[in-house]
Amino acid sequence: MLIKVVNKLIEKFFHTQKNSRFPINEKKADTLSELLKSVVRYALYFVSILWIAEQILPNSTKTILTLTSVAGVAIGFGAQSVVKDVIAGFFILFEDQFAVGDYIIVDNMSGVVEVVGLRVTKLRDFTGDLHIIPNGSIVKVTNKSRGNMRALVNVDIAYEEDIDHAVKVIKETCQEIKKDYQDIIVEGPDVSGVTNLGTSGITLRVIAKTVPMKQWDVEMELRRRIKYALDKEGIEIPYPRNVIIHKNRER
Amino acid sequence: MLIKVVNKLIEKFFHTQKNSRFPINEKKADTLSELLKSVVRYALYFVSILWIAEQILPNSTKTILTLTSVAGVAIGFGAQSVVKDVIAGFFILFEDQFAVGDYIIVDNMSGVVEVVGLRVTKLRDFTGDLHIIPNGSIVKVTNKSRGNMRALVNVDIAYEEDIDHAVKVIKETCQEIKKDYQDIIVEGPDVSGVTNLGTSGITLRVIAKTVPMKQWDVEMELRRRIKYALDKEGIEIPYPRNVIIHKNRER
Amino acid sequence: MLIKVVNKLIEKFFHTQKNSRFPINEKKADTLSELLKSVVRYALYFVSILWIAEQILPNSTKTILTLTSVAGVAIGFGAQSVVKDVIAGFFILFEDQFAVGDYIIVDNMSGVVEVVGLRVTKLRDFTGDLHIIPNGSIVKVTNKSRGNMRALVNVDIAYEEDIDHAVKVIKETCQEIKKDYQDIIVEGPDVSGVTNLGTSGITLRVIAKTVPMKQWDVEMELRRRIKYALDKEGIEIPYPRNVIIHKNRER
Amino acid sequence: MLIKVVNKLIEKFFHTQKNSRFPINEKKADTLSELLKSVVRYALYFVSILWIAEQILPNSTKTILTLTSVAGVAIGFGAQSVVKDVIAGFFILFEDQFAVGDYIIVDNMSGVVEVVGLRVTKLRDFTGDLHIIPNGSIVKVTNKSRGNMRALVNVDIAYEEDIDHAVKVIKETCQEIKKDYQDIIVEGPDVSGVTNLGTSGITLRVIAKTVPMKQWDVEMELRRRIKYALDKEGIEIPYPRNVIIHKNRER
Amino acid sequence: MLIKVVNKLIEKFFHTQKNSRFPINEKKADTLSELLKSVVRYALYFVSILWIAEQILPNSTKTILTLTSVAGVAIGFGAQSVVKDVIAGFFILFEDQFAVGDYIIVDNMSGVVEVVGLRVTKLRDFTGDLHIIPNGSIVKVTNKSRGNMRALVNVDIAYEEDIDHAVKVIKETCQEIKKDYQDIIVEGPDVSGVTNLGTSGITLRVIAKTVPMKQWDVEMELRRRIKYALDKEGIEIPYPRNVIIHKNRER
Amino acid sequence: MLIKVVNKLIEKFFHTQKNSRFPINEKKADTLSELLKSVVRYALYFVSILWIAEQILPNSTKTILTLTSVAGVAIGFGAQSVVKDVIAGFFILFEDQFAVGDYIIVDNMSGVVEVVGLRVTKLRDFTGDLHIIPNGSIVKVTNKSRGNMRALVNVDIAYEEDIDHAVKVIKETCQEIKKDYQDIIVEGPDVSGVTNLGTSGITLRVIAKTVPMKQWDVEMELRRRIKYALDKEGIEIPYPRNVIIHKNRER
Amino acid sequence: MLIKVVNKLIEKFFHTQKNSRFPINEKKADTLSELLKSVVRYALYFVSILWIAEQILPNSTKTILTLTSVAGVAIGFGAQSVVKDVIAGFFILFEDQFAVGDYIIVDNMSGVVEVVGLRVTKLRDFTGDLHIIPNGSIVKVTNKSRGNMRALVNVDIAYEEDIDHAVKVIKETCQEIKKDYQDIIVEGPDVSGVTNLGTSGITLRVIAKTVPMKQWDVEMELRRRIKYALDKEGIEIPYPRNVIIHKNRER
Repeated sequence: MLIKVVNKLIEKFFHTQKNSRFPINEKKADTLSELLKSVVRYALYFVSILWIAEQILPNSTKTILTLTSVAGVAIGFGAQSVVKDVIAGFFILFEDQFAVGDYIIVDNMSGVVEVVGLRVTKLRDFTGDLHIIPNGSIVKVTNKSRGNMRALVNVDIAYEEDIDHAVKVIKETCQEIKKDYQDIIVEGPDVSGVTNLGTSGITLRVIAKTVPMKQWDVEMELRRRIKYALDKEGIEIPYPRNVIIHKNRER
Repeated sequence: MLIKVVNKLIEKFFHTQKNSRFPINEKKADTLSELLKSVVRYALYFVSILWIAEQILPNSTKTILTLTSVAGVAIGFGAQSVVKDVIAGFFILFEDQFAVGDYIIVDNMSGVVEVVGLRVTKLRDFTGDLHIIPNGSIVKVTNKSRGNMRALVNVDIAYEEDIDHAVKVIKETCQEIKKDYQDIIVEGPDVSGVTNLGTSGITLRVIAKTVPMKQWDVEMELRRRIKYALDKEGIEIPYPRNVIIHKNRER
Repeated sequence: MLIKVVNKLIEKFFHTQKNSRFPINEKKADTLSELLKSVVRYALYFVSILWIAEQILPNSTKTILTLTSVAGVAIGFGAQSVVKDVIAGFFILFEDQFAVGDYIIVDNMSGVVEVVGLRVTKLRDFTGDLHIIPNGSIVKVTNKSRGNMRALVNVDIAYEEDIDHAVKVIKETCQEIKKDYQDIIVEGPDVSGVTNLGTSGITLRVIAKTVPMKQWDVEMELRRRIKYALDKEGIEIPYPRNVIIHKNRER
Repeated sequence: MLIKVVNKLIEKFFHTQKNSRFPINEKKADTLSELLKSVVRYALYFVSILWIAEQILPNSTKTILTLTSVAGVAIGFGAQSVVKDVIAGFFILFEDQFAVGDYIIVDNMSGVVEVVGLRVTKLRDFTGDLHIIPNGSIVKVTNKSRGNMRALVNVDIAYEEDIDHAVKVIKETCQEIKKDYQDIIVEGPDVSGVTNLGTSGITLRVIAKTVPMKQWDVEMELRRRIKYALDKEGIEIPYPRNVIIHKNRER
Repeated sequence: MLIKVVNKLIEKFFHTQKNSRFPINEKKADTLSELLKSVVRYALYFVSILWIAEQILPNSTKTILTLTSVAGVAIGFGAQSVVKDVIAGFFILFEDQFAVGDYIIVDNMSGVVEVVGLRVTKLRDFTGDLHIIPNGSIVKVTNKSRGNMRALVNVDIAYEEDIDHAVKVIKETCQEIKKDYQDIIVEGPDVSGVTNLGTSGITLRVIAKTVPMKQWDVEMELRRRIKYALDKEGIEIPYPRNVIIHKNRER
Repeated sequence: MLIKVVNKLIEKFFHTQKNSRFPINEKKADTLSELLKSVVRYALYFVSILWIAEQILPNSTKTILTLTSVAGVAIGFGAQSVVKDVIAGFFILFEDQFAVGDYIIVDNMSGVVEVVGLRVTKLRDFTGDLHIIPNGSIVKVTNKSRGNMRALVNVDIAYEEDIDHAVKVIKETCQEIKKDYQDIIVEGPDVSGVTNLGTSGITLRVIAKTVPMKQWDVEMELRRRIKYALDKEGIEIPYPRNVIIHKNRER
Repeated sequence: MLIKVVNKLIEKFFHTQKNSRFPINEKKADTLSELLKSVVRYALYFVSILWIAEQILPNSTKTILTLTSVAGVAIGFGAQSVVKDVIAGFFILFEDQFAVGDYIIVDNMSGVVEVVGLRVTKLRDFTGDLHIIPNGSIVKVTNKSRGNMRALVNVDIAYEEDIDHAVKVIKETCQEIKKDYQDIIVEGPDVSGVTNLGTSGITLRVIAKTVPMKQWDVEMELRRRIKYALDKEGIEIPYPRNVIIHKNRER
C-alpha cells in the first residue's frame, strides 16, 4: 500500500536529519521515526474509512468530521496543559531561570533542583522529599543561589538594659565572627539598629551577607556567640515579663 | 444490514491486533470490540435518521446537525475533565512520578499509593482513610519514598544553661544512636546549632538522614534518649517562663 | 400530521427496548417516551416556522438560525454543569468510589452516604444534616469505610516523670484493651514513642487499628483506661506549667 | 403588515395553551404573549433593515450579520449566568433538594427557606437577615430539616475527678431528660465517653437525637441540668488550671 | 450621501418613539439619536472602505473581515463584563432584591443603598465610605431591611452562681425593657437558655425581635440594664478565672 | 505605489478632524496618523504576500489565513486584558467613580488617587508607596472622600465602675470637643451605648461625623480628652484582669 | 527550488531594514532572518505535503487542515500566556511603571528591580533571593521608590503616665532628629496623637517623611532616641500588665 512509501520517506528524512548541521540524538531519532510512522498509519486508516463511508453515503463524511472535530476539541483542551508545560519548560531552560543544583522556591515548595525537564521539574527538599512540579505550574520562582544571601538574627534585650551598651557588645562579637568566617561572609555582620519596641523588650537586628547556602551556619554561630557575649556582660535576653497589680476583693 | 459487515471488520481487527507485536490483554480487547460495535450501531442509527429526515424535508439536516453540534459541544466540555484525567494519568505512569507503595503528598492529602489507574489514584492514609484522587487534580506531587529522609528534633534549653555543654551532651547521645541504628540511619545524627533564641529558651536542632519511612522512629528515639541524657546532666527542658514584676496599687 | 407517525415510532422503539436484553424500568420508559414525543413535537413546530419564514423571506432562515445558535450556545454552556455532574456520577458508580452506607469526606463535608444518584450524592452527617452534593463537585473523595481505621490517642506526661516507666504502664493497659475488644481491634494498640517535647510536657502516642467506624469507641476506652492506669501509678497528666521568676520593682 | 398576522397567531397559541392539559396562569400568559409580540416586531424590523441594506449594497448583509453575531456572542456569554440559574433552579425544584420552611446552609449563609424561585432562593436567617441567592450559586446544600438532628454537649471535668463517677451522674441526668422531653427526643441522650484529654481537664461528650430544629433546646436543657447534677455531687467544671513553679532570681 | 437619509430616519423613529405608549425621557432620546447617527456614519465609512478595497483587490475583503472579527471578538470578550453588569442590574431592579434606603451586605461590604443603577450599585457604609459595586459582582445579597431583626446579647456568669436565679433576674429585666420599648420591639426579649459551658463561666443568651435597624439600640439597652440588674442581685459577670496550683521546686 | 495614496488620505482625514467640532490634541493626532500609516503599510505588505502566494499555489491562501487567524486568536486573547482595562477605565471616568485627590480603597490597597488613566490608576498610599493598578482589576471601589466620615472610639471601663456615671463624663467631654472643632465635626460626637460585655470590662462607644479625612484627628483628640476626663473622675480604663483561685497541691 | 528565492527576499528585506530610519541591532537582524528562513522552509514543506495529498486523495486536504487547526488551537491556547507576558511587559516599559533600581512589591514578593525584560522581571530581595516573575503575573504593582516614604513608630506608654508630658518629651526628641538628619528627612517627624487605648497602655504615633529607602534608618534612630528620652523623664514603656484579684477557695 501507500503506507510503505510514506514510511520510506520518513526514514530518509530522519537519515538526512541525522547528518545535518544540528545532528540529533540517534536513539531519539529512531523513536521519533517510529512514532511518526504509526501516526501516518492511523491517519491513512482514518482517511480510508472516510473515503469508504463517502462512497456508501454521500453525506456521512460531514457528520463524521463534525463528530471528530468535537472529539478533537475535547482532546485539544485536555492536552492544553501539556503544551503549556512544555512551553513553560522551554522558557525556564532558555532564560536559565534556574539550573540543576540551585536552591529554589516555587509557591510553597522549596528544594534543590535535581532535574529540569521539558515537562516537569524535580526539587529535593531538605526533608528529603522529592517535589515533582509540572513546568506550567511554575509561575513565580525564587532562586536562592543567585547572589549573596542575607543572614539575619534578631536579639531581644529587656527595657531595663542600656541600648548603646548592648549594641557595642554585639558589634564586637560581629567583628570576631567576621574574622573567623572570612571565606563565607561577604559583608557585615553588623547591628542595623532597634527594629522593634515589643511587649517583652527591645529587638536589635544583626545582618550579614554570606556566600549562598551558608547563611544558616552564620546565623547559628551569630546566635551562639552573641548569647555568650551578652551573658559575659550581664545583659539578659528576657523571658516574657508581666507587671502584676494585686487587688483585694472589695467588689 | 450494514451493521453486521462492520461488526465483522471490528472483530477481525481485534483478532489481528491480538496477534500483533504489542499483544493487548484478551479481556480488554473483547470489551473494546463490544464497545466499538455499539458505538457503530448507534452512529448508523443516527445517520439513517438524518437520511430519512433529509428525504422528507430537504433543509432539516442542517437544523439537526446544528442542534447535535450544540449538544456535542456541551458533552465535549463536560468530558474534558475525563480526558484531562487520562492524559495526566498517562504522564504519571510514563514519567514514573510515583509507584504503588510510595508515600506521597498531593495537595493536603497524603498516604501510601495503593492504585495508580489511568483516571484515578488511590492513597491509603495512615489514619486508614482511602483517598481517591482523579489524576487531573494531581498537579504538584511530593514523593517521600525517593531518597533518604531527614529526621529533625528541636530541643529547647533554658537561657540559664551553658550552650556548649548542652551541645556536647546531645552529640554524645547522637553517637550512641548512630551505633545502635546503623541499618536505618544514613547520615548523622548531629547537632546543627542554635536555631532560635525564643521566648522560653534556646532551641538546638538535631538532624539525621535515614532510610525512607524510618525518620519518625529515629526522631522518637532521639527525643527519648536526649531527654534522659539531659536529665542526667541536670540540664532542664524548660517550661514556659515568666518574669513577674509586682506592683502595689498606687494609681 | 407527521407528528403522529413519529410518536408511533417512538412507542414502538420503547416497546422493543423493554423486551430487549437490557430491560429498562417500565415507568422510566414511559417517562422517556413522553419526553421524547414532546421534544419531537416542538422540533417539528420549529422546523415548520423556519419553512414558512423561508417561503415569505428567502434570507430569513439564516438569520433565525444564527439567533437560535447563539441561544443554543448560551444554553449549552449553562447545561454544561449538568452534563459534568452526570459524567462524574457515572464514574463514581462505575469505579465504585463509594457506596451507600460508606462514611466519606468530600471537601469540608462528611457523612454516611445515603443516596448515590446520577446527578447528586446525599450524605447524612453525624449531626443529622443532609448534605446534597452535585457529583461534578466531588473531585477528591476520602472514603473511611474501605479498610481498617486507626485509633490514635496522645497522652501528655510532665517532664519530671520517667518516660520508660510511663510507657510500660500504658503498654500494660494496651494489652488489657486488646484482650477485651478482640472483635473490633485488628492491630495494636501499642505505644509508638515520644512524638513531642512540648511546652507542657512529653507527648506519648498510642496507636491501634480497628474495624471501620469503631476507631472512636476504641479511642475513648483507651483514654479512660490510660487515665486510670496512670493515676494508679501516680503519673500525672500535667496541667500547663509555668516557671515564675519574681522580681522586685527596682527599675 | 405582516406583524399583525403573527400577533394573531401568538394570541391564538396562548389561547389554546390556556385550555390545554397544563393550563398556565392567565396573567403569566398575557405577559408572555405581550413579550413575544414585541420580540417578533423587533425581529421583523431587523430583517427589513437587512433586506433594505441588501438592496442597496449586495455585500453589506454579511457585514451586518458578523457585527450582530459578535454582539450576540457577548450577550450570550452575559446571559449565561441567568440560564445557569434557571437550570439550577429547575433541578432544585425537580429533585426537591429543599422546600419552603426547611432550614438550610448554602456556603456561609444559613436560614429558613422563604421562597424557592426559578432564578433565586431566599433564606430568612435567625438574625432576621434576608439572604437572596441566585440558584446557580447554590452548589452544595446542607439541609437541616430532613431527618433527626443531633444534640451534642461537651462537659469538662478536672483531672482530679473520678471519670466513672462523673459519667454515672451525667447518665442519670440524661435519663431524667429523656423522660421529660419524650416528644422531641428520638434517641438518647447518652454519654459516649472520654473524647479528649485536654489542657484544662477531661472532656465527656453527651449525644442525643431530636426532632428537627429542637436540638438547641435539648442542648440548653442538658447543659443546665448536668451543671446542677455535677454541683450536687461536688464534681467541678474546671476553670483553666496552671501549675506554678516559683523560682528565685539567682541567674 | 446616504448618511443624511439614514439620519432622517433615525430622527423620525425617535420622534414617534417619544409619542408612543412608553414615552422615553427627551434628553435621553436626543443622546441616543446622536449616538446612533455617529454609529451609522462610521459603519458606512467602514462599508465604503471594504467596497473600495474589493474593487482594487478582489480577495482583500475576506482578509479585512477576518482581522475585524478578531478585533471584534477581543472587544466582545472585553465588553462581556459590562453586559453582565447590565443584565444583573436588570434582575436586581426587576426582582426588587433591594431598594434605595435598604441596609444590605454584599460579600464583605455593607451599607445603606444610595443608588441602584443599571451598571453599578452604591452603598453608604456606617463609616461614611461610599462603596461602588458593579452589579455583575453582586451575587449573593443579604438584605437587613426586609423583616424584623434579631437583637442578641450573651451574658456570662461564673460557675459559682445559681443558673435559675440569674435567669429569673434577667427575665425580669427583659419584661421591663419590653414595656419601655414597645414601639421598636416586636417579640421578646427572653432568655433562651444556657448556650455554653465555657472556660470563664456559663453563657446565657437573651434574644429579641425588633423593627429593622433598631436591633443595636435594643442590644445596648439590654446590656446596660442586665448589668445593673445582676449587680443589684450580687451576681457577677466574671473576669477570666484561673486555678493556680503552687509547686515548690523539687525537680 | 498605492501606499502613498492611502497616506495622503489619512493625513487629510486627520487634518479635517483637527478642525472639526471635537478638536483633538495636535500631538496626539500626529502620533495617530504616523501609527495608522505604518499599520496600512504592513497590511499592504501582508496582502501582497497573499496575492503572490495565490499566484504560485492556488490553495496556499487558505493555509496562510488559517495560520494567521490562529495567531490572531492568540493575540486577541492576550490583548483581552488591555481591552478590559480600557473599557473599565472609560466607565471609571464616565461614571466619576473617583477623581484625582480622592482617598479610595481597592481590594487591599488604599491611597489618594494621583492619576486616573485609561489603562491604569495610580494611588499614593500614606506610607508613600505608589500603587499602580490596571483599571480592569478595579472592580469594587470604596471611596472615602464622598460624604462625611465617621470617627469611632471604643472606651473600656471595668465591671466595677458605674456605667451611667462613665457615660455622663464622656458625654460632657464630647460636648467640649464639639465646641472646639466645630469646623470639622458635622454631627456628634455622642456615646451610643454599651457595645460589649467583654472579658476585661464594659465597652462604651463614642461616634461622631466629620468632614472627610479629618476623622482620624477627631478620634485622636477624643481618645486624649476622654482619658483625661475619666482620670479626673477616678474611672479606670482597665488592664486585663484575672481572678486567681489558689489551690494547694493535694492531688 | 522556491525556497532559495524567498530566502533572498528575506535577506534583502533585512538589509534595507538595517539601513532604514529605525536601524535595528545587526545581531538581532541576523537571528531574525535565520529564524524567518527556517519558518518559510517548514511552511513550504507543509504546503507541499498538502499538495501531494490533494493529488492522491481529493478530500484529504480538508481533513489535514482540520487536524492542524485543532493542534493550532491547542498551541495557541498554550502560547497565550507568553503573548500575555510580552504585552504586559510592553506596558510596563511603555508606561514606566518601574525601572531598574526601584524597590517594588508584586503580590507577596518584594525587592529591588534588577532586570525588566519583555517576558520576565527579576527582583533582588533584601534576603538576597532572586525573584523571577513573568510580566503577565504582574498586575498590581506597588513602587516604593517614587516619592517620599513614611517612617512610622508606635510608642506605648502606661495608663498611669501623663499623655501631654510624654507627647512633649517625644516632640523634643523629634526636633533633635530633624536637625541631625536634615539630608534624609523631608517632613516631620512629629507626634500625630493617641492612636489606641490598648490593653497594655496608650499608643502614641510618631510620623516622618523621608527620602526613599531611608525610612527604616529613621525609624530605628527614632526608636533608640525616644527610648532614651522617655527613660530620662522616668516614663516607662510598659510590659503587659495584669490586675490580679485573689480569691480563696470557698466554692
